[in-house]
Amino acid sequence: MKSVEGGVTAPCGFLAAGIAAGIKKDKKDMAMICSRKPCQAAGTFTKNLVKAAPVKWDQEVVYGGGTVQAVVVNSGVANACTGEEGYGYCRETAQKAAEVLELSPSQVLVASTGVIGAQIPIEKIKKGIETMAPLLSESREAGALAAEAIMTTDTVKKEIAVSIEIGGKTVTLGGMCKGSGMIHPNMCTMLGFVTTDACISKEMLQKALSASVADTYNMVSVDGDTSTNDTVLLLANGMAGNPMITGPGEDYDAFLEALNEVNTYLAKQIAGDGEGATALFEVKVIQAATKEQAVTLSKSIITSNLTKAAIFGHDANWGRILCAMGYSGAQFDPEKVDLYFESAAGRIKIIENGVSTGYSEEEATRILSEKEVTAVADIKMGEASATAWGCDLTYDYVKINADYRS
Amino acid sequence: MKSVEGGVTAPCGFLAAGIAAGIKKDKKDMAMICSRKPCQAAGTFTKNLVKAAPVKWDQEVVYGGGTVQAVVVNSGVANACTGEEGYGYCRETAQKAAEVLELSPSQVLVASTGVIGAQIPIEKIKKGIETMAPLLSESREAGALAAEAIMTTDTVKKEIAVSIEIGGKTVTLGGMCKGSGMIHPNMCTMLGFVTTDACISKEMLQKALSASVADTYNMVSVDGDTSTNDTVLLLANGMAGNPMITGPGEDYDAFLEALNEVNTYLAKQIAGDGEGATALFEVKVIQAATKEQAVTLSKSIITSNLTKAAIFGHDANWGRILCAMGYSGAQFDPEKVDLYFESAAGRIKIIENGVSTGYSEEEATRILSEKEVTAVADIKMGEASATAWGCDLTYDYVKINADYRS
Repeated sequence: MKSVEGGVTAPCGFLAAGIAAGIKKDKKDMAMICSRKPCQAAGTFTKNLVKAAPVKWDQEVVYGGGTVQAVVVNSGVANACTGEEGYGYCRETAQKAAEVLELSPSQVLVASTGVIGAQIPIEKIKKGIETMAPLLSESREAGALAAEAIMTTDTVKKEIAVSIEIGGKTVTLGGMCKGSGMIHPNMCTMLGFVTTDACISKEMLQKALSASVADTYNMVSVDGDTSTNDTVLLLANGMAGNPMITGPGEDYDAFLEALNEVNTYLAKQIAGDGEGATALFEVKVIQAATKEQAVTLSKSIITSNLTKAAIFGHDANWGRILCAMGYSGAQFDPEKVDLYFESAAGRIKIIENGVSTGYSEEEATRILSEKEVTAVADIKMGEASATAWGCDLTYDYVKINADYRS
Repeated sequence: MKSVEGGVTAPCGFLAAGIAAGIKKDKKDMAMICSRKPCQAAGTFTKNLVKAAPVKWDQEVVYGGGTVQAVVVNSGVANACTGEEGYGYCRETAQKAAEVLELSPSQVLVASTGVIGAQIPIEKIKKGIETMAPLLSESREAGALAAEAIMTTDTVKKEIAVSIEIGGKTVTLGGMCKGSGMIHPNMCTMLGFVTTDACISKEMLQKALSASVADTYNMVSVDGDTSTNDTVLLLANGMAGNPMITGPGEDYDAFLEALNEVNTYLAKQIAGDGEGATALFEVKVIQAATKEQAVTLSKSIITSNLTKAAIFGHDANWGRILCAMGYSGAQFDPEKVDLYFESAAGRIKIIENGVSTGYSEEEATRILSEKEVTAVADIKMGEASATAWGCDLTYDYVKINADYRS
């Protein structure tokens, strides 16, 4: 696998654009991705019972089974809790893009993020589509503009691209995503878009995406709130010319590995750029009896407000971690747990068999003062493990969310 | 039912004391409750798999079935994650109290709260018991000192007493409790102590406590973290002389109603005095199909960080409430939900059938600026309802928990 410059425009035949359409004040707020050829599309969507209108639209398009050729995103208004009217605006958005790009509306996916409950300004959206169409480009810069245009409270744009060889052909995957609040994906993250020129069947594409999302976006939590808009879309236009992947095997495995690389990177980016975060907090649960147990335990730790506040304070308050494991619902023996903290500054064993090792608080604080810190809980029950990603809980998280709409 | 002055010493025959035993700096840190006569005891305990040593001790005492006559509490060190050594200190604590008060160690309950992972300073604890024994008093002030001595990050002590008539006799119940972080009781709250002079069988006492805890302490969440130490103890010494309550009926109902009054008051006090809180946030889900559904929905709202931060900002960000309902796991129709905010400043309908009513943001903010605010979600499915209590998420919550140990 090779790292490649850029994001969603890195694979062959994908164009993008990002502009300020006047939905937000002074910021880019609309993006478009378009493929030269029709794509197989896979998607994973929020499990929140309250689904935003664009989630419903995309589910119909993706599950409908036809090909897809464009995605229109706005990052000003979520178009969630907007009833029939909101759903109608999704249709109008797709119709407008279809008209401008000479497609069918059922080939256009839409995605939104932003404030819940307000209707989207449909005239600005339509105008934005008209503005973006002639700007669509395969350049590195166009991909970056799109990645920037989907940001809300994110502080950095998030994009990545990798390439692999399949059947003697170079296959490229590119991705972009955005966080950074209401992040506790229960199916996938807020908004993620991955493009690839791989030639792969729709069935295997969805299979790869679902498998990858479980280990990547679904292992991230910023604040425990599962959004109404969570969507990850994966488009494959086949332009790499590799022998089509239609079932399991070496080629599928190579593709899945590359997809995991893209999604892991994006998921960690979301966690580390969580609202108000000063640190990426990684939690590994190892030697678990089952994967499910390791997932439950690691996610319980990553969502504990008390643990997250302690990480902000660079405080090795391990009792909160053991406490969060204890209320997770997973069975284990608290008196067999070993716990370590590690970072670029070193590694320290904090508890052994459930009780303190008498470690140095100064050294623990030094290790916890890095930008990326990891807690490793060894529960000594078996061979399974899981990794989850979150961030610390800070004053700025409260500040951002107390005045989000003002 | 009548309101009575005081707390745990209000019922006949209960004595209390509270002192600074030197476990914390400059603050009261030990309390004792003692009854002139042996008591029937009921208890509810944390469901966290990681149970503090005193929880294990108390479970043995309460489930053992014998009578109880004293409770010893320290609010400096939780004695959780302390292994065999920590459990041994519980035994030593009970032995010391038994020796000083001329009881059997199995008649002494112990409770702890504070930092997790450290061993309790057993010599200070023993000294504290010796100091408290001669100070034990039935006075109003002694009860207040005990309520003060169990506080950790609480800003106010929490006590209440009520009386009822049963069989021509006045029966009194008194209670005290403490919050205010790691509060998300999954069986009961951090530490709560209720005394009564009612004459009631152990079986009916436990039945009343379990029923009451489900609707009171278990409906409170400050931060979603279920403590390792949650304990509610209820002691009944029978000195009121009422005909013994041995089964369901009018007398039991009257007792349960009074117990609910005490526990509801204490539960709301815990929520409103949550770490860093500026407001008590009450959530009512009404017209639910089942009680369980109403409980799931109301607790999901009360634990949503985004909703809590919005309450801190006096922001009627109702989308976050609908979002939290959506990811709760309960089934309902988002497009039938009506939502109201209410407080001493008025009542406002925010959404009707899942979409905004076009309410005035100014008026909503005025209503949300009170010290106690309520959200009412009407899901129009049936007759059941539930009420949960929490608080807002503030800078001070982060501050308190980032430096708790320093």
